[in-house]
Order: sequence, then structure tokens, then C-alpha cells
Amino acid sequence: MPQLKNDSTLDRIQAIRGKFPGFQVDGILFSGISNIRYLSGFTGSDGALVLGPEGARLLVDGRYTAQAIREVRQIPVVQYANKMQGIEQAVRDLHLKRIGFEASFVCVDMHQALTRRLRKSKLVPLGDELRMLRACKDDHEILVMKKAAAIASKAMAALAKEIRPGWTEQETALYLEMTARRSGGEQVSFETIVASGKNAALPHAKPTNRKIKTGDFVVVDFGIKYRGYCSDETCTFAIGELTADQKNAYRAVLRAHDEAIACIREGTAAADVDALVRGVLGDQYSRFFVHGTGHGVGLEVHEAPRLAPDSKDVLKAGMVVTVEPGLYYPGCWGIRIEDTVVVKKNSCEKITKMNKKPIVIK
Amino acid sequence: MPQLKNDSTLDRIQAIRGKFPGFQVDGILFSGISNIRYLSGFTGSDGALVLGPEGARLLVDGRYTAQAIREVRQIPVVQYANKMQGIEQAVRDLHLKRIGFEASFVCVDMHQALTRRLRKSKLVPLGDELRMLRACKDDHEILVMKKAAAIASKAMAALAKEIRPGWTEQETALYLEMTARRSGGEQVSFETIVASGKNAALPHAKPTNRKIKTGDFVVVDFGIKYRGYCSDETCTFAIGELTADQKNAYRAVLRAHDEAIACIREGTAAADVDALVRGVLGDQYSRFFVHGTGHGVGLEVHEAPRLAPDSKDVLKAGMVVTVEPGLYYPGCWGIRIEDTVVVKKNSCEKITKMNKKPIVIK
Repeated sequence: MPQLKNDSTLDRIQAIRGKFPGFQVDGILFSGISNIRYLSGFTGSDGALVLGPEGARLLVDGRYTAQAIREVRQIPVVQYANKMQGIEQAVRDLHLKRIGFEASFVCVDMHQALTRRLRKSKLVPLGDELRMLRACKDDHEILVMKKAAAIASKAMAALAKEIRPGWTEQETALYLEMTARRSGGEQVSFETIVASGKNAALPHAKPTNRKIKTGDFVVVDFGIKYRGYCSDETCTFAIGELTADQKNAYRAVLRAHDEAIACIREGTAAADVDALVRGVLGDQYSRFFVHGTGHGVGLEVHEAPRLAPDSKDVLKAGMVVTVEPGLYYPGCWGIRIEDTVVVKKNSCEKITKMNKKPIVIK
Repeated sequence: MPQLKNDSTLDRIQAIRGKFPGFQVDGILFSGISNIRYLSGFTGSDGALVLGPEGARLLVDGRYTAQAIREVRQIPVVQYANKMQGIEQAVRDLHLKRIGFEASFVCVDMHQALTRRLRKSKLVPLGDELRMLRACKDDHEILVMKKAAAIASKAMAALAKEIRPGWTEQETALYLEMTARRSGGEQVSFETIVASGKNAALPHAKPTNRKIKTGDFVVVDFGIKYRGYCSDETCTFAIGELTADQKNAYRAVLRAHDEAIACIREGTAAADVDALVRGVLGDQYSRFFVHGTGHGVGLEVHEAPRLAPDSKDVLKAGMVVTVEPGLYYPGCWGIRIEDTVVVKKNSCEKITKMNKKPIVIK
């Protein structure tokens, strides 16, 4: 892994400034922490970023001042005692009149407080305008995301060698997380899912102390962060021989997964990928597929675009998305197969590394 | 640990219904996931809860339907394809005219969407009215929080025996997390902080691959969840002998910590606890104490009340709060000492278990 440099925050800020006229604003207040990280490099968990046409301010509280100064060299860091007061001051210093804000991060009470404080300025909600801000990853981000995916897949491969009937779901989750952390993973992208037997019919099950046993499907959905970027991959392990029904269902999900990946490229409509999956699953299976086909991944494990029936998104080169068809038979068992791919001009590239053929544990 | 039963969600719902007239609403839409869990018992990560004067609906998407039906028996579970549509339908089914909502969870875009859909109803922002909803814990919650704290303190005690110069911050964090998980901890309450040497001057540092060495203070801030409830405790380890400056500083922080805990009881103003800490630290130290004295803990690691200079909160019996004075010398070292306590009528009870005398590692 080469030493990675990240000088791209200035480019990102310039790109968003170029959109100010279209948004009819002369500045934007960012309060979503992933957008702040994306635009400034600050890795703390709280703060605000105010961008003007030329100047900018990164606002943090006392817990983060020293860290922000160390991490962010291109934007003045200002410490606040009260966040709203800090924002008011920054807006005044930068002489902003029409300030865009993230309509999906600013809650109603913060909006009320800002409206009271910024009487001389106009607050402009930006929703769809910012939704795709981080969707297309640059080469640096893709390199980091490949590393995150590689760490997680390596842990999953190690698990495939070790897991045995008698392990609890919790032990299995712990094994994965420890293995990935020892290889440089920072923290999990989301709470690890290890769902065995009946529990596998719950798409978002929490690991329990249930012991894995012969005849189970075990859905393992795992992701780790590296340099803040998330990975996301699901394998379904079969413990012992599958029944004919289970084999057929697994085959159907795998075919849906493979065909979806085969159709992903720049220009594909996200809803079409979802429709293709449901088409391959057909009448027999598709009503047991109870969630969308996939989602963007980046600094957040769920971000734009969405691959779902009602999505209006169109895939573009550089987007990183999951493809994760599944079947869930309440009270019986479940299957999910998930890879993360980078959209390219004429195809896509898998960055998660486990082979998705049935993994049978004897 | 006795088997815990949780029939309290119905009592909680009745209590909040009793406040509808004062709030001037005939129903409330809850979308914050911790409030939803608190009021319904649903442990998923997405959904909405609509409470009417008598009826109620728990709304979830297809990922969570089976789980919600299993977890929530007292409220009808309704699956939605589109959350806003689901809310609209529930509001109609329950005949609600004035619907309160959590002003600190509903973002501007969701508010806009709700306003469009619920033309015949009035949306009423509830901010301060709901802030203290979960602040006073019942006996069941306190039992669970004691268990969470015990698991984390046990891991911290094990660490105190094992940690040696040469361990990296990341290894140290991993050791703690794995130890706590093996004792029944679910997941960390927040990203574990292990900050050694200069890094300890960053109150919210992320663990790095820096090796701990003689002469360091190592600030270890760690919490684990148990049944969804967070623990939160900080120890500062001294690696080898302390300098006179370090000893004096540690003594000052410990005294501030002890005196703050001694003054906590029902009726104490949260701002007074903070002022007392700053007073004990005095001119010499208090300007290096760059954050608030503490915060409530529960289903969220940071929740009401706040123990800070500008807090208007008054402590009540059953509140669970942290007391965490610290000193941060940028470029040099840092100290933080933190316990979590339950507020009682005439005192408070520490639920975190590490002795806070200097822990010197030789």
C-alpha cells in the first residue's frame, strides 16, 4: 500500500463553490460530519464547516481544537463554546447573505435556532442538490476503500476456515472483528450481523448466543472502516449439506447477484438493477426479498445512490455500491449474498474478495 | 444477574400520553431510534413510532418486520415501503390532528415532506418538552446500566494488569473491547479512546499505532453496551514514575472529580457541579479543562442532562451522569478521570468500578 496523500479537499471545496450560483447561495453551512470530513479532512465527531465564496471556517468545540489544527491546514479552525454562536460569528466574518445548509442533517430545532440568530441572512435548504456530493469516489478514495474491503474479506476468509458447529453467533462476530482489527481495520462499518438458523430470516439480526448447528444457513454481513471509509460484504455459510430447497434458493440468489453485477456500468438506472434482481428471482422467490438491492458506500455505510424499486438514481463511473439480494423465510432460514463494486464506464469492478459460491462448512 | 423483564414500555407510553394536553397535541411521531426503543422495545436501527391518545403504530421497513413483531407485542407493527407514506397512513388511521414531533431528530427535509403529506393535520415541534424523556432511569434500567458498567470496569481492571510499555494504542483498545465483549458486552458505546503521550492532550483522540512508553500518561476512555445501554468510564494510567508536575496535576483532577461527585444529589444544579470542578482546578489548571464536566448516559452515550457552564438542568433522582474533569496540555500530555453515577435523593452512587487513584504501570 503506497503512502496515501490527500490534497483533494481543496479541489472538493472548489468544486462545491462552483455550484454556489446554481444553488443561489453565497455560502454553505455543513453540519453532517461525513461531509465535513470529506471537505476538510477533520476526523472528529462534532463540528461545523462554513464555506464562503473565498474564505471558510472549521468550527469545533474544545475537545477537538488541537486535533482539528493538526488535521486541517487549509481552513482556519475556530473553537466555539456554543455551536450556534460559532456559526453566527463565522457567517458574519465571511459576510454571507444566502447560506445553503444540508436539509437532511439540520434538524428542526437547529434550523429554528439558526433562523433566530441569522436574521440578516437567508437560510436555503439544500436537499437533492447535495445528495450526490460524495457519491463519485476519486482514485484516492477507491484505493482506501479497496484496502478496507481487503481487510474485511481476509477476516471473512479466515472465518471460513475456522467456523464450526457449536460456535455462537456472538463468538463468530467477535472472531471477525478481532481478525480485521488486527490487520489494520479501525472499527466496524456497522454492527456485525451473524444470523444463523431461524435468525437468518431477520435481515438485520443482532448476534445472539445461539450455537450454530448442522443444517443452518449462517448469514454473515460484515464491514470494517479504514481511514474512515466503510467496507460491506455478506457471505452465507452452509453448515453441513444443504437441502434441495436451500440449494435451489441459494442458486437463485447467486444468479440474481451475478446478473445484477454484470449489468452495472455508467448509465445504468439504479432501479433497473433492482428490477433485474427481482426478475431473476421470479414469482417463486421475489416476495421473500424484503429490502432494496443495494446502496452507495463511502464515509457512511449507507449513502447515495440507492438501488431500489423507487430510486431515480443513475449510476456513474466512480460510484461504489453494494449488490445484496437475499431471501428470508420467517421462522425457517435466510440467505444474503453481497459484494461491493466500483462502477466503471463499461462495467464494474468487485472490491470485496470472497468467492460467492456456496461455502459449505463440514 | 436476575432475569430482567421489561414491561415498562406501556407505562412509559401512558406517561407520555398524559402530557399530550400540556404539549397541545393529540399524538406524537417519534423518529429518534433511542426514543422508539425506549417506548416500544424495538431494537432495530430504523423506523417510526406514532402514538395516538389510545392507539399506536410501530412502522418499520421489510428488513425489520419479523424482528419487530417478535420484539414488540403491545403495539401493532406495520411495514412500509416508503417511510413518509407509512407515517401518513398511521396518522390517518389514528385520526390525529395535532401531531408533535421530535424537533431534534426530524430534519428539515423530512419536515418538508411531512408537511406536504399531512396537509389536514398540524405538525408541532417538541424540543425541550421531550429532552428529558429518558433522563430519569427506572430500577430496571439502572440494573442494566450497572451490568454494562461492571463489564467495562472488569475489562479495564484486566488491562491495568496487562498493559506494558511497547503496546500500541490500537492494541490496547482492541484488548479492552475483546475482553468486554467476551464478558457479554454487545458493542462499544463510542469509539474507544486510548491516547498516550502527546496524543493524550487530544480529548477525543483516535487510537494510533504509537507505542506506549515510560513517562506517558495514557488516557483510556471506554464504554460498552449491554441490552442497548451504554457505560462510560475513563482511567488515566501512568507509565513509570510521574514527574512532580504530573503528580500535582493528577491530584488536582482527582480532587475536582471527587468533590463533584460528593456534591451530586437530587436538586443540585448541573452548572454548579461544573462550576465546582473549575473552582477546584483553580487559576493554575482550569484553562486546560476544555470541555464540560459531564453528561447523561443511557441508550445514548450522550443524552440529557448536561453538566456544563451554560446548562440549565437540575439533577433528579434516577438520572445517570458522568463526571469527567480533565487537563490537556497541547503537545505534552493529558489527564482525564471519569466515573458514571446514579443521582439519588441525598447523594449519588458510582456505578463504574475502577479505583481512581493513580494507576502506575511499572
